[in-house]
Amino acid sequence: MDAMKGIIQRYQHKRISLVEAGVTRHRSIFNGLKALAEGQPDAQLSKPEVVIIHDAVRPFVEEDILLKVVTAAKEHGAAGAVRPLVSTVISPSADGCLDHSLERARHRASEMPQAFLFDVIYEAYQQCSDYDLEFGTECLQLALKYCHIKAKLVEGSPDLWKVTYKQDLYAAESIIKERISEQICIVMDTEEDEEHVGHHFEEMLKNELNHVKVTSGSLCHPGRDLQQIILEQCYNFVCVNVKTSEFEETQKLLDVLKESNISILYPVVVISVHFLDHKSVPIGQEMENLMQIREFAKEVKKRNILLCGLLIYYPQEKQKLQDSLRQGAIIIANLIKERNSGLVGQLLVA
Amino acid sequence: MDAMKGIIQRYQHKRISLVEAGVTRHRSIFNGLKALAEGQPDAQLSKPEVVIIHDAVRPFVEEDILLKVVTAAKEHGAAGAVRPLVSTVISPSADGCLDHSLERARHRASEMPQAFLFDVIYEAYQQCSDYDLEFGTECLQLALKYCHIKAKLVEGSPDLWKVTYKQDLYAAESIIKERISEQICIVMDTEEDEEHVGHHFEEMLKNELNHVKVTSGSLCHPGRDLQQIILEQCYNFVCVNVKTSEFEETQKLLDVLKESNISILYPVVVISVHFLDHKSVPIGQEMENLMQIREFAKEVKKRNILLCGLLIYYPQEKQKLQDSLRQGAIIIANLIKERNSGLVGQLLVA
Repeated sequence: MDAMKGIIQRYQHKRISLVEAGVTRHRSIFNGLKALAEGQPDAQLSKPEVVIIHDAVRPFVEEDILLKVVTAAKEHGAAGAVRPLVSTVISPSADGCLDHSLERARHRASEMPQAFLFDVIYEAYQQCSDYDLEFGTECLQLALKYCHIKAKLVEGSPDLWKVTYKQDLYAAESIIKERISEQICIVMDTEEDEEHVGHHFEEMLKNELNHVKVTSGSLCHPGRDLQQIILEQCYNFVCVNVKTSEFEETQKLLDVLKESNISILYPVVVISVHFLDHKSVPIGQEMENLMQIREFAKEVKKRNILLCGLLIYYPQEKQKLQDSLRQGAIIIANLIKERNSGLVGQLLVA
Repeated sequence: MDAMKGIIQRYQHKRISLVEAGVTRHRSIFNGLKALAEGQPDAQLSKPEVVIIHDAVRPFVEEDILLKVVTAAKEHGAAGAVRPLVSTVISPSADGCLDHSLERARHRASEMPQAFLFDVIYEAYQQCSDYDLEFGTECLQLALKYCHIKAKLVEGSPDLWKVTYKQDLYAAESIIKERISEQICIVMDTEEDEEHVGHHFEEMLKNELNHVKVTSGSLCHPGRDLQQIILEQCYNFVCVNVKTSEFEETQKLLDVLKESNISILYPVVVISVHFLDHKSVPIGQEMENLMQIREFAKEVKKRNILLCGLLIYYPQEKQKLQDSLRQGAIIIANLIKERNSGLVGQLLVA
């Protein structure tokens, strides 16, 4: 209970009530329903018309399927998400041999979320036996057995799968990383010179990262467009420093991100891009200058912001410049996709 | 067929025969069995006592479960791997509502591999109906229906799951990465000075990477221990250059790896570690020197070897040195875990 209270407080949830779990799945659900029923002693909650039951172990539930099961439950009394069976289901005999196998096409895996008219599922739980409460696994079955309600079955998406084994944790992590890598915001310290390398680089990013939405934010005006992009939950920022080899612009961006609190839920990747002109200082000296990024990175990592530097070599030859810019785009795509906290503060070179 | 022939040639498999697939699962299996049966026109194969049927879509099959199903098939005539059901299985009625649900504890998911006495499963396929061949999914069921053989069911591991959806591909990739990241071989260009920073670093790696087996290889003798480590399928090498800031030792290691062909199956990670003494050249100059790693990296990437550089700053203060070494160990752990080809040729700094 303390861990859950901590989460609710940390993410400032307002409309959550906690109820003690039971020793089995059905006893836990029953406890939740009791808390929603009328006439409870410390009734802070009111009885809903429809109640949704869901497993935390299926974290990728979309609003769409919630709407579908609720609508179907209103009409049919009960509804649940189902998926095609991936493997054939068989029934073993007592000696561990095959008794019979079920026809795969005629069966479905019952998944969550499920929705019920509150009175239906509460009635079912009040009537059901101790054996059901101990060993049962299927709420739809309780509604059928005790209230004669035939639940409507709604096809769910593969994302509803149950995170059960180690490989499922890997898959869940990758799905989250994929979802927060769909948008990159480019912040540039200049707007004027359209022929500048910064703009070529922006074009290259748009061409190379073709599965990513690339938007432009600005720190020049009071940053309204940037605020909007943050509100849309963009977790990836590329700060292109054209005018200076300092971190002024990058620091401004970091300040805006820190203030926005966007990194509370997922790590935010910020890449500070700098260009090394073939006419300017030796690369070693420029790298040494840029090493101060390590200190900024250490500081913002505490706020769940992952900062890296990217130095793009800027040769005279047009083809070589294109290669450098492309290499830079590939590095950025990788940093965003992997979201690797071990590389924080590094200065990469394209 | 051409794609498969290419794979067989590339990985130099010797004992594989290809058979044309059919339009359904059962027709494909039947074609395979026919090729193994006696009296075929171009019979290069001989009829086996026991045959194993497996899905390529379950890539993580262990020798252990193969042995178990074969042994059980010899005794019972047929055997197959099973797993507990993750979700409850239900049967829908024609109108898309719940007809009934199955008791989860009394059913199992039928997985692969399965094994059969050849004569049993071949007989079953010869007798089975066109309907079976078109719509059937379960070989154990055919052995039961047509040969009255009750297959022995053997509990399999969660790794036998079927790679079906996008999230399964993510999971499979992570499992492979995890498996090839279990061992790191450290190659050092000196053996004498036990007090040297290189040895402190080796100790730090052993302490920090506690889920990884850290072994030492040497290029000094004709490299026999290194050959042994490569034979044991180690895919991760840290080359610690203590005596020189050149890449002599790293290049020797790369040559050995190229010759071994170990990178044919999985990418090999090589990290060339260098130390920067607080008394020596400025860090910018040293970084510039080490930038030639980009050229080596480009070259060996063609051979599926991912080369990165790591420059470890070596301050006088003991505590700060420990911090640098620990940071270096964390970077190495990350590079090996992520195996990110986009970071090839980069020089990281700890």
